[in-house]
Amino acid sequence: MGDTQENSFTEQERFRIRRLEISDKKKGFIELLRQLTICESISDKDFDKDFEERYQELANHGNDHVICVIEDTHTEKIVATGSVFIEKKFIRNCAKVGHIEDVVVDSLIRGMQLGKKVVGFLTDHACSVGCYKVILDCNTENKPFYEKCGYKQKEVQTVKYFI
Amino acid sequence: MGDTQENSFTEQERFRIRRLEISDKKKGFIELLRQLTICESISDKDFDKDFEERYQELANHGNDHVICVIEDTHTEKIVATGSVFIEKKFIRNCAKVGHIEDVVVDSLIRGMQLGKKVVGFLTDHACSVGCYKVILDCNTENKPFYEKCGYKQKEVQTVKYFI
Repeated sequence: MGDTQENSFTEQERFRIRRLEISDKKKGFIELLRQLTICESISDKDFDKDFEERYQELANHGNDHVICVIEDTHTEKIVATGSVFIEKKFIRNCAKVGHIEDVVVDSLIRGMQLGKKVVGFLTDHACSVGCYKVILDCNTENKPFYEKCGYKQKEVQTVKYFI
Repeated sequence: MGDTQENSFTEQERFRIRRLEISDKKKGFIELLRQLTICESISDKDFDKDFEERYQELANHGNDHVICVIEDTHTEKIVATGSVFIEKKFIRNCAKVGHIEDVVVDSLIRGMQLGKKVVGFLTDHACSVGCYKVILDCNTENKPFYEKCGYKQKEVQTVKYFI
């Protein structure tokens, strides 16, 4: 029991959850996103500029677009991330809705509840800024995981691609 | 044939598609949204202020949040609407994704392709600002309609409610 508490405390100390910082690009943030889908090479100079511009653009949205990361303080690497943006509507007395996107956990460090921690952080943020609900689109394979996070299937997601 | 062309021309003249204007609140915009879900009473003075603030807030996003409406120029009523907001990502070389929400056509004027016109307007907008795809969540009942608009089911939508 003593050991378990100690381990759990150590893990909490080791994996720090916080908002994205611009320096996270050097801590493997893009490599992590590449586990989700296509991302540019971080050695590309043009992408350096694009990344900084996009970071600033999103930072300007303040609480309306939050990207969270988990840093492994032992390795100083970003090992999990996810984002939430706040949509503002006219319906339901000008309500707000959170949209969670791009959740990914480093494939080398799975099974430590880091995904759940990310989704919890983003869900709590949406709640704290007054959203009445949060939407999260996922493939059927990942549905059981999001159900454990308190999400329930409601509709279907349809997509149109331009490229 | 001559008649058909004339009717089609008349319809095009009658149903004008454009971006939302603040004066559309007096043209039944909120009553139309009420066909979709709960909306406040337009006679509520507090809602007047909330509406104007939200309108301004969304207008400040420029091309990143567009609400389109169709006005019936005969009755000067808003008979269809839908919105699209542009999400900015880091993945895929800082790509953009459009999200279509809150599409509704007046139940009294259905079967005139107005829904298809709204979805087309919003999809074209997302394409014009450089999105690589557009996402549209819908219930299974409406899926055949969105398939006619060129959308295909990809994932499932999960939701968590706070209220």
